[in-house]
Amino acid sequence: MRVNGKDTTHINLQDRGLQYGDGLFETIAVSNGRLEFWQRHMQRLQLGCRRLNIPPPDSQLLLDEARQIVGRRHKAVLKIIITRGEGGRGYRPPAQTSTRPNRIVSLHDWPDYTAANASEGISLRYCSTPLGINPVLAGVKHLNRLEQVMARSEWNDAEIQEGIMLNSWGDVIEGTMSNLFFIKDGMLHSPDLSNCGVAGIMRGVILELARSANIPLKVGCYNRADMDAADELFITNSLIGIWPVQRLEQRSFDIGPLTRQIMSTLDNARCNDISHETV
Amino acid sequence: MRVNGKDTTHINLQDRGLQYGDGLFETIAVSNGRLEFWQRHMQRLQLGCRRLNIPPPDSQLLLDEARQIVGRRHKAVLKIIITRGEGGRGYRPPAQTSTRPNRIVSLHDWPDYTAANASEGISLRYCSTPLGINPVLAGVKHLNRLEQVMARSEWNDAEIQEGIMLNSWGDVIEGTMSNLFFIKDGMLHSPDLSNCGVAGIMRGVILELARSANIPLKVGCYNRADMDAADELFITNSLIGIWPVQRLEQRSFDIGPLTRQIMSTLDNARCNDISHETV
Repeated sequence: MRVNGKDTTHINLQDRGLQYGDGLFETIAVSNGRLEFWQRHMQRLQLGCRRLNIPPPDSQLLLDEARQIVGRRHKAVLKIIITRGEGGRGYRPPAQTSTRPNRIVSLHDWPDYTAANASEGISLRYCSTPLGINPVLAGVKHLNRLEQVMARSEWNDAEIQEGIMLNSWGDVIEGTMSNLFFIKDGMLHSPDLSNCGVAGIMRGVILELARSANIPLKVGCYNRADMDAADELFITNSLIGIWPVQRLEQRSFDIGPLTRQIMSTLDNARCNDISHETV
Repeated sequence: MRVNGKDTTHINLQDRGLQYGDGLFETIAVSNGRLEFWQRHMQRLQLGCRRLNIPPPDSQLLLDEARQIVGRRHKAVLKIIITRGEGGRGYRPPAQTSTRPNRIVSLHDWPDYTAANASEGISLRYCSTPLGINPVLAGVKHLNRLEQVMARSEWNDAEIQEGIMLNSWGDVIEGTMSNLFFIKDGMLHSPDLSNCGVAGIMRGVILELARSANIPLKVGCYNRADMDAADELFITNSLIGIWPVQRLEQRSFDIGPLTRQIMSTLDNARCNDISHETV
């Protein structure tokens, strides 16, 4: 683990990341010598920094650091946290010119997900913890994640792999650690994230792949009834890629043809996408 | 600064406070050998821990630590942070029995507020950053404070001391670092915090003092029009006590008789309240 390029296991207690969750992060799949979708992750990180008025890190510096940390590891998770650093009086951030962000880069074991999640599909539940609505923060992968922590602590059943979160208007938004897609009458749908939620890199990849493949596509506003009426359902994130859903509460789903087509297209992209970087 | 009783300036990078804002805090006024409203702060801390399923700290241990850290300082700010500690896989918290919370206690200089804020009143503005609605987290002084950080960064004008935040329904809730009260036709009003906001210790004290003094009182749902129609307006927090408002955007206010009465009652409580602890 490194903070601003130095090996360390600790960070200053005054860091605003700890004090206020004042920062953002990226979780990147390291697979077979590739930093998957690296350039997309960097674009989102820069965009998030602009949204929060945090001076963005140098992408080349981060890439060099990522390569050093990953070394010869074949399969791992690279996590990058950027905080606003120390300083400022209370909530008020220091002026941008005197902000010294902290850059935390760490490598983690690949989670022990069973292959059956992708091949046979997973079971979902609805969470009762809502997502607050806030267009100022929506889409950004920031460090304020208590809603996800509370939602994920709602169940212990190992047979249920993910929980769906609704916003305070009752719209279906995303999973605790994933984005959500469904298919109805041949059209691919995914919830709009302009009021809350995290705009996942894998979600962006899949939206692009669907456009390129001329799959009819809509990003919109959906509720539980739309989920129940769906023909196919799947979740996505940068590590899992796509997991089809075979059960949502009492309703069961088949892994349908369009889900299989998108999974196969994504497999190619995970091998060949131009936004990867090599380790 | 201490972490779990040890002098240190740093904390482990794996701490969930940094990773997810997974924790909560208290900001306590140290004044003339007293830890103001200590027992109330401890009650809120315990309540917050229960809401977030974090094992609560031992209050006596915290009190001993606070006394050691404060030492002979006459006027200072004591900050206590409790995080869920390290561990768990992703957002999922470790089981409560294997949770080892981290306890961070630090002492800070008293902010250099001018005495005129209390004697002549302050100027307020409205912030455009909304507060997300989330009854699961409402009231808790947790570490997810990006909304406040973004709201506080909306203005640089030193003549404006505080900004009012609305929730995503347009209800007036609180200041970025304070709670809000207004008086209309002899009745004291304060926004309901069951959907968002921080239930401030000073707010609780003032609600109690008002009840004891038989001041007509309502905690309810209010909007900008209610603020404009108010006779008197003031904000509160544990450090400032009460600051009357002399201007909100274009509207000016006098420091009225009921505000003065409550300020005077609070002065007594800050000297004599039974919930204080001595250093």
